[in-house]
Amino acid sequence: MKEQIPINKAHRLINAGCVVLITSAFDNKENIMSLAWQTPLSSKPLLIGIAVAQAHLTHEYIINSREFVINIPGWNLLEKVIFCGKNKGRNTDKIKESGLRFTPASTVEVPVVEDCLANIECRVTENVTTGDHSFFVAEVLNAAAEKNMFYGVWGKNVELIHHLGGSDYYPGKP
Amino acid sequence: MKEQIPINKAHRLINAGCVVLITSAFDNKENIMSLAWQTPLSSKPLLIGIAVAQAHLTHEYIINSREFVINIPGWNLLEKVIFCGKNKGRNTDKIKESGLRFTPASTVEVPVVEDCLANIECRVTENVTTGDHSFFVAEVLNAAAEKNMFYGVWGKNVELIHHLGGSDYYPGKP
Repeated sequence: MKEQIPINKAHRLINAGCVVLITSAFDNKENIMSLAWQTPLSSKPLLIGIAVAQAHLTHEYIINSREFVINIPGWNLLEKVIFCGKNKGRNTDKIKESGLRFTPASTVEVPVVEDCLANIECRVTENVTTGDHSFFVAEVLNAAAEKNMFYGVWGKNVELIHHLGGSDYYPGKP
Repeated sequence: MKEQIPINKAHRLINAGCVVLITSAFDNKENIMSLAWQTPLSSKPLLIGIAVAQAHLTHEYIINSREFVINIPGWNLLEKVIFCGKNKGRNTDKIKESGLRFTPASTVEVPVVEDCLANIECRVTENVTTGDHSFFVAEVLNAAAEKNMFYGVWGKNVELIHHLGGSDYYPGKP
């Protein structure tokens, strides 16, 4: 069961540099991808940035819809994260085949990963071309986390996922 | 003892989302700050981004010099990281008072933290105003890591630092 958290604390959900799952949608199509290249960008207003390869389906959807959701998986979802990182949305319906459960978002037309520890609903305010990626700067419209896990920072009952590169990950234990 | 690493692998030094120490210099003055808001941005060319609060001395130096070094501390340097995060360069000569050891960089006029596990020498290619921070997009000019610790990804003998927010940190163990 999730509860809303104050938008001015939403950056703390990803401040440790964890891997996230990005959901996106456009024209009644939906996609999910794994992503490690994220960072908070500003406190007031609260802004977050993600770098998405220009070749990816997620890039196409976000460029068109200007919306996405950052979903924060626990270590128990590592296999799903690897699945969503290895497979491409152009070849695989990852929303169906990942085995993850989805629910509608509150403020954007993008599915939210119910199984994740937290979800941050975002609207793009700017996109910057950075080499072979686009860096999407986004404001937070809504944020929610599992009850009894987040107290302004993540609690000790949480395990996040960190990506070293390639197929190497490790758990992050507050 | 450090050895050079290929520039096209330099993003792997920070890919896990670890805390870094940013060194900067301008007009014969030098500074160091702790920073969690970093991310790789592009593979080809290799680009990295850091978000620096506009009020910080580091911001002033980077805006003027267009250079900085990303230094990656091990968990053993946590107290130094906290010191460099709590104190402001405008009030404290953190380069002297941190107790860290510095050496010259190879390609930029910025000191490198010798005690860190790795150093990435960067030149700014673009800066984007993101709320109360500037997001500096930078190319990598040189990268080096301690011998026998980095093999394209960090080895198991490394402990990185992750910042949850406030005064809460945890070690990252590959």
